[in-house]
Amino acid sequence: MATNIQHLDTAVDELRDLLGDRLSTSESVRTHHATGEETYHSPSPPDAVVFPASTEEVLAIVKICAAHGVPMIPFGAGTSLEGNVIALHGGVTIDLSQMNDVVQVNPEDLDATVQAGVTRKQLNTYLRDTGLFFPVDPGADASLGGMAATRASGTNAVRYGTMRENILGLTVVTADGHIVKTGGRARKSSAGYDLTRLYVGSEGTLGIITEVTLRLYGIPEAVSAAVCAFPSLEDAVNSVILIIQSGIPVARIELLDDVQMDATNRYSGMDYAVANTLFFEFHGTDASVAEQVGQVRDIVADFGGGDFQYAVSAEDRSKLWQARHDVFYSTLALRPGSLGWPTDVCVPISRLAECLLTTKEDIQEAGLIAPIVGHVGDGNFHVQFLVEPGTDEIDRAREVNGRMIARALDMGGTCTGEHGIGIGKLAYLEAEHGAGVDVMRQLKRALDPANLMNPGKVVSIS
Amino acid sequence: MATNIQHLDTAVDELRDLLGDRLSTSESVRTHHATGEETYHSPSPPDAVVFPASTEEVLAIVKICAAHGVPMIPFGAGTSLEGNVIALHGGVTIDLSQMNDVVQVNPEDLDATVQAGVTRKQLNTYLRDTGLFFPVDPGADASLGGMAATRASGTNAVRYGTMRENILGLTVVTADGHIVKTGGRARKSSAGYDLTRLYVGSEGTLGIITEVTLRLYGIPEAVSAAVCAFPSLEDAVNSVILIIQSGIPVARIELLDDVQMDATNRYSGMDYAVANTLFFEFHGTDASVAEQVGQVRDIVADFGGGDFQYAVSAEDRSKLWQARHDVFYSTLALRPGSLGWPTDVCVPISRLAECLLTTKEDIQEAGLIAPIVGHVGDGNFHVQFLVEPGTDEIDRAREVNGRMIARALDMGGTCTGEHGIGIGKLAYLEAEHGAGVDVMRQLKRALDPANLMNPGKVVSIS
Repeated sequence: MATNIQHLDTAVDELRDLLGDRLSTSESVRTHHATGEETYHSPSPPDAVVFPASTEEVLAIVKICAAHGVPMIPFGAGTSLEGNVIALHGGVTIDLSQMNDVVQVNPEDLDATVQAGVTRKQLNTYLRDTGLFFPVDPGADASLGGMAATRASGTNAVRYGTMRENILGLTVVTADGHIVKTGGRARKSSAGYDLTRLYVGSEGTLGIITEVTLRLYGIPEAVSAAVCAFPSLEDAVNSVILIIQSGIPVARIELLDDVQMDATNRYSGMDYAVANTLFFEFHGTDASVAEQVGQVRDIVADFGGGDFQYAVSAEDRSKLWQARHDVFYSTLALRPGSLGWPTDVCVPISRLAECLLTTKEDIQEAGLIAPIVGHVGDGNFHVQFLVEPGTDEIDRAREVNGRMIARALDMGGTCTGEHGIGIGKLAYLEAEHGAGVDVMRQLKRALDPANLMNPGKVVSIS
Repeated sequence: MATNIQHLDTAVDELRDLLGDRLSTSESVRTHHATGEETYHSPSPPDAVVFPASTEEVLAIVKICAAHGVPMIPFGAGTSLEGNVIALHGGVTIDLSQMNDVVQVNPEDLDATVQAGVTRKQLNTYLRDTGLFFPVDPGADASLGGMAATRASGTNAVRYGTMRENILGLTVVTADGHIVKTGGRARKSSAGYDLTRLYVGSEGTLGIITEVTLRLYGIPEAVSAAVCAFPSLEDAVNSVILIIQSGIPVARIELLDDVQMDATNRYSGMDYAVANTLFFEFHGTDASVAEQVGQVRDIVADFGGGDFQYAVSAEDRSKLWQARHDVFYSTLALRPGSLGWPTDVCVPISRLAECLLTTKEDIQEAGLIAPIVGHVGDGNFHVQFLVEPGTDEIDRAREVNGRMIARALDMGGTCTGEHGIGIGKLAYLEAEHGAGVDVMRQLKRALDPANLMNPGKVVSIS
């Protein structure tokens, strides 16, 4: 699919009439939107970038683009990892970052409605005085619309769930030019097909998310974080498995392997042991947090885990989790000049140790540097390959990645726990879903028959 | 849509060749499948009922019916309430009750895969020795396939979520004759469109669910139940609102109004006060249950709640919840010869008291008898109209129901929290979803273009 140039020019003219200087065709703006920030994929810039301020403007943009056969790529904070926002076929990138109003907070119902461009940190800052927070935390300060679109999760998902569980409803502009509200504010509903969950994770290929209604939670009375080093990766992971099987409601259980801890110490100025390590966070009442800590300490002791290094003050916890969130950058700093390629899989928890250990061996045998971090309470982990451009390392990394995904699928897992398909995982969707991909194609054809909504991502119908 | 008689006869012949005596055209079997057990809707029998034993047999049945243009209605335990299984246009009812194998239990991953006909009680009996249980509990001993198809929930949903949150994956036979597995056993995935959630709640209109992979939970170390009477409905509901807002992880919070308590005392041989009453259940460690009970007692005391009557032993709790689950029957016994019509709405928790009280006034002003019970922790409640056949009570009940739904929608709620659309709520789907219903129709047309999958339910495309 390539956009007809004459049609494109007409569309851009009409969009400029609509938006004035909130349309840009400048080289720098287009380049910024060619990949997003954190991706190893080849860039492909859009022909123009628009910055709508409302759902109604998005609707008008969609109508113009649809009338002229121009692809539309929604764009939030640009922090996606699998090429989800690359303008593969040119067209118009719809940057929602100016749609950053918190529309409504209902503290009494523990929900909030935000425009798609509001970031998770912005929302949590806004909520500070209400005693509430939004827990889903993918690390990057992603936009909530983008997080919805990729079905993001992150460190808190083991207790609070992912975007899938924490969205009550969406406002979506459809390819055929309608504004659809997919849900109200009731906690549950069995009224018709679950349009909310259909659009969550659809990566902008079925419609453009412009508003999100989210579940909120009370800030826990007590929060405590702790770091614990283990003699081996296996011991760390086996501790996690037992903690999950015991039903202890830990809020965060993050694994950083020895390579990653070395990188984190250097980059974030920490002095932890260079060992396979778990970061924990406990939420609850004082009594409940104390009980959880006791239960977890008993388990990790059985697996040779060291003493807990606690971070109880908000400042210390913030420093700890910032170090965790900075793994992308700390890893890059481990090998300056290298390209960082983060990938992820998710497996049933009982297979996690085996999947991790075999993958780590494979990385070593391939002669690659690739620290491992994981939202291990969910069975989800990330390998970040550090490859030297111009060498064959990228090819070797591709092979290791392919084997890791095949291994995860063999174990009943998934080719991506939270990064999405974008273009990076296209080849693996079929292996995972088989005949289900045909159903996905039927859905795509039904809701976007002209294939203008983020074309080439998730499923190909061209 | 009416089935061509010649085509029907051919299809039945082919199905008999396939299934032998697992196909029935007897009057009694067809009548049993004309409505299911608990519905006020007019019956409409299928032309034949088939009893497949495997997904492959369902596939063969679907291919035969599709080839001859014959409607297919999946049927589990027949406990749905909104006419979800009525054979509106005749055709073949696919009764999945013989597909009742527990396929696989993975205690180490807290999941199980069952055939669609396995009931929730059957699964929990099967799991007894594993220390695990499946929490979703709609009261009736529904099949897990049916519960998936209607997005069921019930008493435990306030803590454990509904079928939406507790299904990892499904096996579905599609209208075009394929077997699709919608998910693996990973706790989360962002690999493509969420087919699992698309089929959950689709009431058999997009495909036939033949297997379900479910999340399991450890049986809590401590369980305690308690009953508490209140001076008014408002006091009871305001207690619930504060409990939910405080984030206390109560496992069950059920409201029974004074009319219902009278019915329950009589039917279940209880001697509770005839007052607006809450039934609680607390799950956790000993310490956590004690803490929750203390927190909840403090809150209810502020609203004039009476002493807690505890049920701690498994036997006492079982008796208590059986009484709760029997409300359908206890209500009917309140007025022998009357027709029971249970309906439900769900609203944001802050609006629950207002919605309940106004509805109760409306019931009284209309001169109707209609006890109220509710999964009030979710903002979900049921009105069970008791109408005398042959009078205008059914019309008055329809009006009260319509006003209640309009009220719930005005409050940001939904026309059904857990019963589904079936045919009973068809008229309200449009009011709730507006342009979203067009998207639902596009999905239905894409996945079932011949409109043979439970036609006439959820959305109409004929």
